[in-house]
Amino acid sequence: MKTTTKLVLAADLAGTAVFAIEGAVAAMRGGLDLLGVMVIAFTVALGGGVVRDLLIGAAPPSAIRDWRYPALAFTMGLVTFVFHAQILGIPDHILIALDAAGLALFAVAGAQKAVEYGIGPFIAALMGTVTGVGGGVVRDLLLARVPMVLVSDIYASAAFVGGALVVAGRRAGLPPVVAAVGAGIACFALRLTAVRNGWHLPRAQLG
Amino acid sequence: MKTTTKLVLAADLAGTAVFAIEGAVAAMRGGLDLLGVMVIAFTVALGGGVVRDLLIGAAPPSAIRDWRYPALAFTMGLVTFVFHAQILGIPDHILIALDAAGLALFAVAGAQKAVEYGIGPFIAALMGTVTGVGGGVVRDLLLARVPMVLVSDIYASAAFVGGALVVAGRRAGLPPVVAAVGAGIACFALRLTAVRNGWHLPRAQLG
Amino acid sequence: MKTTTKLVLAADLAGTAVFAIEGAVAAMRGGLDLLGVMVIAFTVALGGGVVRDLLIGAAPPSAIRDWRYPALAFTMGLVTFVFHAQILGIPDHILIALDAAGLALFAVAGAQKAVEYGIGPFIAALMGTVTGVGGGVVRDLLLARVPMVLVSDIYASAAFVGGALVVAGRRAGLPPVVAAVGAGIACFALRLTAVRNGWHLPRAQLG
Repeated sequence: MKTTTKLVLAADLAGTAVFAIEGAVAAMRGGLDLLGVMVIAFTVALGGGVVRDLLIGAAPPSAIRDWRYPALAFTMGLVTFVFHAQILGIPDHILIALDAAGLALFAVAGAQKAVEYGIGPFIAALMGTVTGVGGGVVRDLLLARVPMVLVSDIYASAAFVGGALVVAGRRAGLPPVVAAVGAGIACFALRLTAVRNGWHLPRAQLG
Repeated sequence: MKTTTKLVLAADLAGTAVFAIEGAVAAMRGGLDLLGVMVIAFTVALGGGVVRDLLIGAAPPSAIRDWRYPALAFTMGLVTFVFHAQILGIPDHILIALDAAGLALFAVAGAQKAVEYGIGPFIAALMGTVTGVGGGVVRDLLLARVPMVLVSDIYASAAFVGGALVVAGRRAGLPPVVAAVGAGIACFALRLTAVRNGWHLPRAQLG
Repeated sequence: MKTTTKLVLAADLAGTAVFAIEGAVAAMRGGLDLLGVMVIAFTVALGGGVVRDLLIGAAPPSAIRDWRYPALAFTMGLVTFVFHAQILGIPDHILIALDAAGLALFAVAGAQKAVEYGIGPFIAALMGTVTGVGGGVVRDLLLARVPMVLVSDIYASAAFVGGALVVAGRRAGLPPVVAAVGAGIACFALRLTAVRNGWHLPRAQLG
């Protein structure tokens, strides 16, 4: 397997595990039953990657072709359900850090994979964003609320920055691992700094 | 045409007719006009199969390639609209049985088709679930409510059992028709028994 | 490039610009921040075409393969955000005419492209409808409301008429440009006449 393929796989699987836990927590807080918890865990963990793969023409998507993705998502969802007493006690700032880690992993994996499929640089960075935020958008749609990513602070923007850095790093001739790790750290740090400082994007002043 | 291909087609078309009626009833109860009724009938009838086909790499989806699918969905939607006085008088337990039949037909067709496309057993069973519940999820999203499948009793689980039985039956060397009919009956019976007895999946005890 | 390919490209790009502006206006009225405005502009402008391309098997979709689509959508979204004071002052009847123009452009481009991909006439007309209304449906889902297209007057029907006329014109041997322009004008005029006269489709009389 090529280094970059391994890199995408590792980042994708790590992001899958993190987002499955997060999805399961959101579903339990929403009062869903075991099946609902599993479905939301699955969706949040795999939704972004599936949309990315359909868009870049990688059909069937890895999450369908490779049993490790759904198995991992279901296992983490089940573990979260069983140990909910422990997991729901996790403080919010740890959950936010976990979420930022998942976002960074997926943004890097998504942009990297799009580059492999010959997608141009601007859209490759966008594909990183889609991978990072896609699962959360589907989760919010299923729970019938406006997607958090649309109303909240620096989130999709951090994913876009991560994706753009991967693409720029590859173009600048950096080794793939260096570009990926650097971009991931930048995305993670930007997201956490934005939360800590309450950074917001501008809003149109209506009237 | 191969036996299994004919089987998928027959189960898919029967499920399409059933779900188109159901979608039209839901849309009329929601106060939508003729077009809204047709769109929801179409979506509920074909949404699950389209998502399945995109995921397993069968593009363009049968519902797009084969005019019989949309023609059937629209015809049933129109018939339901015209004869709404009669159809809305149908008692709820008949509608629930019809819905369980559609679920069983789609779960079997979906898992069977995924197996044909070389998808592994676990994900093939999942694809049966997606085919069975997909249309209803899209319907609930369009009507801006939390998908019933996430909050209600044994529904997606019954579809998963049906899909898993098709896959297991094929692996055990049963003739395709026997595996399909047996799995369909099991899914249908499980769904109806769950409704009748008010079975629920466990829910996490929070606090 | 073939005449019909150029025609699809021109109609698609013009529709993209119009719908990006409209999406940005809807997002600003919904109180979203800059990123939310960009995402909604992007989605409304490109959502319909992406869904069409996935359904007809044109993967990756033009909006992903060709950087001009996203660049145009983002630019129009940004321009709308920056000049919101001027743009939000535009009277509603101009916005409705713009929207009808976008609908007509996308209905024609969608049906034309489906015909190029060898899709049968009925479904090609449907693909025109999907292209025209798809972006708006996704926008309403993201803003957690029932899609306007399902509850309002002649909208998807006008797109379907436009798509059907393109297909019929091609079958009747008209030159592509004539069929496209005629169908586009018919769709645009039908939509505006329906709004002006308050035309509605029938609704089932329940009880």
